Amino acid sequence: MNLLKKLKIAIFTVILILISNTAFTQITNDISHEDALKVLLAAKKKAEETNVLVNIAVVDAGANLKAFIRMDESFLGSIDVAIKKAKTARYFDIDTGKLGELTQPGGIIYNIEHSNGGLITFPGGYPIKNKNGKIIGAIGVSGGTIDQDRAIAIFGAESII
Amino acid sequence: MNLLKKLKIAIFTVILILISNTAFTQITNDISHEDALKVLLAAKKKAEETNVLVNIAVVDAGANLKAFIRMDESFLGSIDVAIKKAKTARYFDIDTGKLGELTQPGGIIYNIEHSNGGLITFPGGYPIKNKNGKIIGAIGVSGGTIDQDRAIAIFGAESII
Amino acid sequence: MNLLKKLKIAIFTVILILISNTAFTQITNDISHEDALKVLLAAKKKAEETNVLVNIAVVDAGANLKAFIRMDESFLGSIDVAIKKAKTARYFDIDTGKLGELTQPGGIIYNIEHSNGGLITFPGGYPIKNKNGKIIGAIGVSGGTIDQDRAIAIFGAESII
Amino acid sequence: MNLLKKLKIAIFTVILILISNTAFTQITNDISHEDALKVLLAAKKKAEETNVLVNIAVVDAGANLKAFIRMDESFLGSIDVAIKKAKTARYFDIDTGKLGELTQPGGIIYNIEHSNGGLITFPGGYPIKNKNGKIIGAIGVSGGTIDQDRAIAIFGAESII
Repeated sequence: MNLLKKLKIAIFTVILILISNTAFTQITNDISHEDALKVLLAAKKKAEETNVLVNIAVVDAGANLKAFIRMDESFLGSIDVAIKKAKTARYFDIDTGKLGELTQPGGIIYNIEHSNGGLITFPGGYPIKNKNGKIIGAIGVSGGTIDQDRAIAIFGAESII
Repeated sequence: MNLLKKLKIAIFTVILILISNTAFTQITNDISHEDALKVLLAAKKKAEETNVLVNIAVVDAGANLKAFIRMDESFLGSIDVAIKKAKTARYFDIDTGKLGELTQPGGIIYNIEHSNGGLITFPGGYPIKNKNGKIIGAIGVSGGTIDQDRAIAIFGAESII
Repeated sequence: MNLLKKLKIAIFTVILILISNTAFTQITNDISHEDALKVLLAAKKKAEETNVLVNIAVVDAGANLKAFIRMDESFLGSIDVAIKKAKTARYFDIDTGKLGELTQPGGIIYNIEHSNGGLITFPGGYPIKNKNGKIIGAIGVSGGTIDQDRAIAIFGAESII
Repeated sequence: MNLLKKLKIAIFTVILILISNTAFTQITNDISHEDALKVLLAAKKKAEETNVLVNIAVVDAGANLKAFIRMDESFLGSIDVAIKKAKTARYFDIDTGKLGELTQPGGIIYNIEHSNGGLITFPGGYPIKNKNGKIIGAIGVSGGTIDQDRAIAIFGAESII
C-alpha cells in the first residue's frame, strides 16, 4: 500500500470517527448475552404493558439458546413453541409468519416443519439484527395471539438497534 | 401495615368465615391423586356403559402424568394418543378439538403439532377444573370416535366438580 | 380319535372339574385392566401404610402401559423411572435388581440400559404372574429407597395371585 | 361447623393477623419469574466475579424451564447440561452431586441417567427453596469446574431466601 492510499484511508477514518458517536463500539456478528438480556427484558416489559402472558426465547447467531424467560401463568406448551420460533427465525433468517405462507399444502416448502427437530412457522419468531443490519440471532415469543406474539418479538428485536 | 388496617382486615376475615361453610376446605391448584383416580374411574365407567374401548390419561397442573388406564382390547396406538391429548389440553388450557380448528392448513397456528414432542389436536383432550374454576390438570381419552372420546373426557373431568 | 380315548379324556376332565373350584375361571396370558388396577391399588395401599411416596406403573404382556398412578408429592423424576422399571421387568422377564447385577462394568450385559429407549436396572421392577405362574405383565415402583420400591412392587404383583 | 367453632377460628385468625407483619405476604410453592430472574442474575454476577464462563438455567416447581442465560464464550455443550442439571435437581429434589454418588457402578441407582430423556448427575444442579424451606424450583449451572458450577448454583439458589 503506498503512502497516498494510506493517507486517504486515515483521513476517511478520521471523518468517520468525527461524524459518528458509535465508531468505537464493537459490533460483532453474534449477539452478546448483555444484548440478549436487553431484548428479553424489553419484550417482557412490552408484554406486561399490553397484558399478554408469554414465553420469550433468544437464540444467538448459531441458533443456540442464549436467554429465556417464562412469565408466570403463561402456557406450559409455549416454552417449546417460543424456543422453536426463535430457532426457526434464525435457521432461515426470516419472520416465521412469512415462512408459514410457504409451508401450506401446495406451498413450495410444504411441511418443512418436519426438519430440525420440529419447526414453528406461524408468527412470533423474528431475526435480531445489529446496528449494521447483520442478523446476529433471533427472538421467539409464544403465549398471546399470533399478532401479539409478533409485535412483542419485533419490539424486543428492535430494542438493541 | 398499621393497626387500623390490620383490624379492618381481621373484621373482614371474621365476616368471611361466618358467612361461608367452605372457608376451611382446602382447594389447591393441582389435582390430587385421589381426584385423578376418581376422574379416571368415572371416565372408564362411562366408556363401559357406552361400549367404547379407550385409553384414559390424567395429567396434573404441570402436565405430568398422574394416572392412566388402558381398557382391555383397546388400541395399542391409543396409549400415546391419550397421554398426548391430556398434555396438549393442559399445555394450552383448551379442549383439544378447539385447538385443532386453529391448526388446519391456513389456520393461525398451522402445524403447532410439531412442538412439545408431538401434540394431538383433535377432540378427546379436556382441561380439568377444581370447584373454583381453576385448571388443575387435564384428561385425554383415545380409542373411540372423536365424539365418543370427547364425551368421555368431559364426563371424567366434570366428575370431581 | 376312537371312543375309548374320548371316554378317557371325558372322565379326566370330570375329575379335573370336581377337584378344582377355579376350573372355569378364564386364565389368560395377558393382564386384564381390572387386575392391573388391583395391582396398582394394592401397591398404593402398601406404600401409604409404610409412608412411602411412589409412582406405580403396570405394563401388560406386550410391555405396553396398562395402568399408572403418581402419589401426591412423589418425585417428578419417578414417573419415567417407574414406567421404565415395569417395561424392563417385562422386556427380560426379570426382577430389575437381578438384571442390574449383570449390567455393571465388566458384567456380561454391561450397559444394556442404552437399548429400548432406556432401561432401569436397579430394584423396583417386577414381573406379574397369573395363577398358573405365567408372566402376564410387570409392575414398576419408584420414589422410595430401592428396598422399599422392590417390596411395594412384589406386594402389588402378588396381590392377584 | 357450628357458630361457636366459627367464632373461635375467627378470633384465632384475628390474633394471627395482629401479631404477624408477614401474614399477607404471599409465599407460593412455585418460583415466580421475577425470582427466577433474580436467581439467574445473582448466579451470573457470581460467575463474572470469579471469571467463570457458564450457562445458567432455572426450572420451576414442575421442572419446566423458567429462565436461562448463556454467557458469551461459554461452552455450547453446556446449554443442555445446565438445563438437564436443573431438571435433575428438581426431578429428585437433590443436589445433583449427591445423586451422582449413588449412580456410580455398584451404586444403588446405577445408570438412572437413562431415564427422563437424560439426567446429569454431577455437581451443578441445586434445588431452590422459598423462605419457608419448600422447594419451588431448581438451578443448573454448567461451564466451569464442577466445584465452580456448584458454588455458583448454590449462590444463585440462596439469593432469594
